[in-house]
Amino acid sequence: MTLTPNRHVKTIATVCLSGTLDDKLVAAAHAGFDGIELFEPDLVASTSSPAEVRKRCEELGLDIVLYQPFRDLDSTDREQFERNLIRLDRKFDVMAELGVDLILVCSNASGDAVADIDELAAQLRAAGELAERRGMRIAYEALAWGRTVDLWQQSWEAVRRADHPAVGLCLDSFHILSRSSTMSELADVPGDKIFFLQLADAPHKDMDVLQWSRHYRLFPGEGAFDLVAFTAAVLDAGYRGPLSLEVFNDVFRQSSPVRTAIDAVRSLGALEAGLDHALPRQRFDVAFVELSVTPTNLTTAEHALSALGFAPSATHRTKKVTAWTQHDVTILVTVVTDAAEDDSTAIAAIGFDTEDPTGFAATAEGLNVAALPRVVRPGEADLPAVAAPDGVSVFFVSAERAELDWRRDFDVESPAGVAADAGLTAIDHVSVTAPFDRYDESVLFYRSVLGMRTEEVAEYPGPYGLVRSHLLRAPQPSGFGVALDGPLLRRGKWTPGVQTPQHIAFLTDDIVAALGALPADAPILRIPDNYYVDLQARLDLTDEFVDRIRRLNILYDRSADGEYLHAYTAVIGSQVYFEIVERRGDYRGRPLADAPVRMAAHVAARRAKAHF
Amino acid sequence: MTLTPNRHVKTIATVCLSGTLDDKLVAAAHAGFDGIELFEPDLVASTSSPAEVRKRCEELGLDIVLYQPFRDLDSTDREQFERNLIRLDRKFDVMAELGVDLILVCSNASGDAVADIDELAAQLRAAGELAERRGMRIAYEALAWGRTVDLWQQSWEAVRRADHPAVGLCLDSFHILSRSSTMSELADVPGDKIFFLQLADAPHKDMDVLQWSRHYRLFPGEGAFDLVAFTAAVLDAGYRGPLSLEVFNDVFRQSSPVRTAIDAVRSLGALEAGLDHALPRQRFDVAFVELSVTPTNLTTAEHALSALGFAPSATHRTKKVTAWTQHDVTILVTVVTDAAEDDSTAIAAIGFDTEDPTGFAATAEGLNVAALPRVVRPGEADLPAVAAPDGVSVFFVSAERAELDWRRDFDVESPAGVAADAGLTAIDHVSVTAPFDRYDESVLFYRSVLGMRTEEVAEYPGPYGLVRSHLLRAPQPSGFGVALDGPLLRRGKWTPGVQTPQHIAFLTDDIVAALGALPADAPILRIPDNYYVDLQARLDLTDEFVDRIRRLNILYDRSADGEYLHAYTAVIGSQVYFEIVERRGDYRGRPLADAPVRMAAHVAARRAKAHF
Repeated sequence: MTLTPNRHVKTIATVCLSGTLDDKLVAAAHAGFDGIELFEPDLVASTSSPAEVRKRCEELGLDIVLYQPFRDLDSTDREQFERNLIRLDRKFDVMAELGVDLILVCSNASGDAVADIDELAAQLRAAGELAERRGMRIAYEALAWGRTVDLWQQSWEAVRRADHPAVGLCLDSFHILSRSSTMSELADVPGDKIFFLQLADAPHKDMDVLQWSRHYRLFPGEGAFDLVAFTAAVLDAGYRGPLSLEVFNDVFRQSSPVRTAIDAVRSLGALEAGLDHALPRQRFDVAFVELSVTPTNLTTAEHALSALGFAPSATHRTKKVTAWTQHDVTILVTVVTDAAEDDSTAIAAIGFDTEDPTGFAATAEGLNVAALPRVVRPGEADLPAVAAPDGVSVFFVSAERAELDWRRDFDVESPAGVAADAGLTAIDHVSVTAPFDRYDESVLFYRSVLGMRTEEVAEYPGPYGLVRSHLLRAPQPSGFGVALDGPLLRRGKWTPGVQTPQHIAFLTDDIVAALGALPADAPILRIPDNYYVDLQARLDLTDEFVDRIRRLNILYDRSADGEYLHAYTAVIGSQVYFEIVERRGDYRGRPLADAPVRMAAHVAARRAKAHF
Repeated sequence: MTLTPNRHVKTIATVCLSGTLDDKLVAAAHAGFDGIELFEPDLVASTSSPAEVRKRCEELGLDIVLYQPFRDLDSTDREQFERNLIRLDRKFDVMAELGVDLILVCSNASGDAVADIDELAAQLRAAGELAERRGMRIAYEALAWGRTVDLWQQSWEAVRRADHPAVGLCLDSFHILSRSSTMSELADVPGDKIFFLQLADAPHKDMDVLQWSRHYRLFPGEGAFDLVAFTAAVLDAGYRGPLSLEVFNDVFRQSSPVRTAIDAVRSLGALEAGLDHALPRQRFDVAFVELSVTPTNLTTAEHALSALGFAPSATHRTKKVTAWTQHDVTILVTVVTDAAEDDSTAIAAIGFDTEDPTGFAATAEGLNVAALPRVVRPGEADLPAVAAPDGVSVFFVSAERAELDWRRDFDVESPAGVAADAGLTAIDHVSVTAPFDRYDESVLFYRSVLGMRTEEVAEYPGPYGLVRSHLLRAPQPSGFGVALDGPLLRRGKWTPGVQTPQHIAFLTDDIVAALGALPADAPILRIPDNYYVDLQARLDLTDEFVDRIRRLNILYDRSADGEYLHAYTAVIGSQVYFEIVERRGDYRGRPLADAPVRMAAHVAARRAKAHF
């Protein structure tokens, strides 16, 4: 695969980024954007004059491609419309100083919006004439909550009838896709009448469209819209301007603008790759998951793995790393001595085995994902690796290419130690807590760099607050999942729970057999009886079945498509635990109603321990 | 005025509070609740058996008054309904162990909901017969998003036709007021058929009612609903059960449960006081606002006050406190040496002058507001004071009662120093940043303890994130305002701005004269030219007017009712600045569109200073 990251001019609206105008410009330039849409309130609050902003943008290599927004141009009150034209003319003064010739005019959302399409076209034409005299152009956009014009087809009809060279269309993916508007008529729009294209993704939300737009927009590839199909339709219609991002998002408004800008440019890179069918489609398997533990936690971790049927299979020649294996599952246990806390544990890395490790790494690099710096000793494998936004290191390896085989630096041990196979055959998913400011960036990372797809988006209550969950899964046959579980609101001071839990969910074909055969001291989490009483009432299960899973501390859920049986271990050190999962039939997602029970049980276990 | 806090039994649903079930029970008991509604998921996740929960509640002096919720009882599928009855019977087992005899059944929100009112009544009657055999009762509630029953009138019609002694009504203020249902028909409902009353307030939200209900409910008095009128109607109908809170709120789920429970019990106390017309209606004036400064900031603060026309008028006899006065405005400047940071400044206290200081203090105490511990030396005034949830100390004083006159401990200075009166005659409002977890508690505090009313609720963008604003105002003639300005989302690491700004807004009759007469070195915040260019285009103002306010760094807004002209000082120390305000006509609220300009200007001033 190849990425052609410079195929389109890429720009970003200043409103997408946190900080003062200068913070935003520096961030956009640093991330490699070609230009910006200047959001008027950012200019109004700036201590720099328009001429100074122009100069600053030139220094930074940024074009100003659009001035926005101009609201409520048309009016049923003719005198008001004349005043609006004067207002527009004053904005042209500012634009001339800035050196930008395109202004966004959005459809009127107030009481005096013109409903008559010919009158609206006439007013747009009058504005176009004014613009032409000033050497300016107008991109007219249908707001999803416009009063008389709220569909792109209506805005096009107004532009078509205005029939003026200085009046064209602005298409905004949010306003169009939030209304589920059809795009088929776009083929009839001349490409050169599409003056501007604004891109934003969004999650599905059952709410007022204005609030949805102003608080929850996302960069392309982070939400639920099909931006590839949308952009392809606009490009097919002949649009040749920039791909520009306009995202209003409560979290991005608070996040480091440099980091957000890099995420933003990545979203356009992934969109371009999607347009070129260049995103990863290769298969991969999970070669290993690496667990980092402190010396304090090593025994606990080894005991848990051993109790779950893992056995040491290889030892690193120079580092304190041991591979624990069962069937095709390998957990690397790395002892670290520089952890922040004595009891730190973490899912440090995931290794993906693929035919083309360097291809994956090149995709990541093309998407502005930072490669991880590595210290490689002579003779050691130099494995390409990148940092996922959630803090996990992602390695690309290949068992079929000696120089990219992670086992190259390990002494493989005799398999004599493999005594207690518990039938754990694969990893169903790994769950990590994405940092609050990087949650959506994490979704984009797994989708774009690894080609994973969303299986389930949900919220569930925990004892210390609501949790949002986004489960991504690799295509079959790997089917490997990554679940991003994080607080819906950033945590406050009252959060006695584990704030950033992580876990690995192992698959088995027979959880009852697997749990039944575990040694007596396996650190399986005790599930309270109340859960089983409720379960039986809810799902009308037999006494025999409920008794069996109750004795083994197995949780259970049933959907129309299948069943999900699972059990947990205690938390090892600061934040890591294991799950054992049996999926029956075609159960999709995870039984999130069980999560609060698991969390409360972990709290109870921790408190009981604290009493000793 | 008198509060009769024990007039009604007060209970709270466990879902209102953060933590494990035991955390919730301890918090509810500590706050003085009489009992709880047991939210089933809290029991299911608990490691305590129902009998143990019962015992724990007995130890804590809590009655379990309701078990909830039971969903989807009725069904168009007769076999499903029979299974639902078995499920109900199993819940009765649990309830018998818990020692609670009332279960909440909410209207069916799924596809098999019964639409035929007689069939629904028949199914409720069958459930009622089962309940009666078990010594239980059913409180049937119309969910606002129920499929066939979504209005309380429908739920009443079903209960009426069911005509069974074990089947009554549950009224939930959210489900009723969110749908703007009328309450007039309630007079026809026999009081003893209203089995339960759940109370929740909520802010106005233009969103899906289910999401609104599950994320944004508030305690009575914290939102926009008229809970006093609602509760009065239910009591007038003859309801004699507990006043019970059922609030789903994202922030409360994350907050200290003890603190939340105290806020919750206060909300019911204020509601009872409202029912008794016992909330404060006395007038008060603002006697003083106290500013605490470090020795480092003292000169800056004194310079600012002096430049704004204040002069020292009194000095505390034993403490480092100076009163600065202009017309009726007094600012106490207190030098503290134990501040967290060298440049700490804070609005430490507000003194309210009233005819009945001890009455206000008694109201506060009756509402579980902690009195402030005070060290009073012999002969010093012992002024009643309480802690507002936003960290400000609230003093109740009286100039007409020597022992409660704050000036008692001050040596009044000669007014000779009063040279530079700038025409600042009153305080329009004080703005503070309420702690994220206590924002809604703060609203309730000012409403209930001081009888203030909401003037404006809004959101505005700042350079580092969205800000929510709630402006409360005392009745005329004081008209004193408190604005709670806080981040919409809890701040993350990228927040270079002042995180908890506070300011005092002084009123003047003539801001142009006031600003024009200030000394040249008055620390007035410079407003960028871009603001004035935009202002002129937006509001079609004359060159002359705009030039005049531009030279004086005055910001301007106009509404249908009046005008608002204002200017700011630089930030003094860590977080405090001053605003000078002229209101013309009947301008309501504040010009929040100016806030981002002010914030960016403060950032620019701070950065410029950092360069020296």
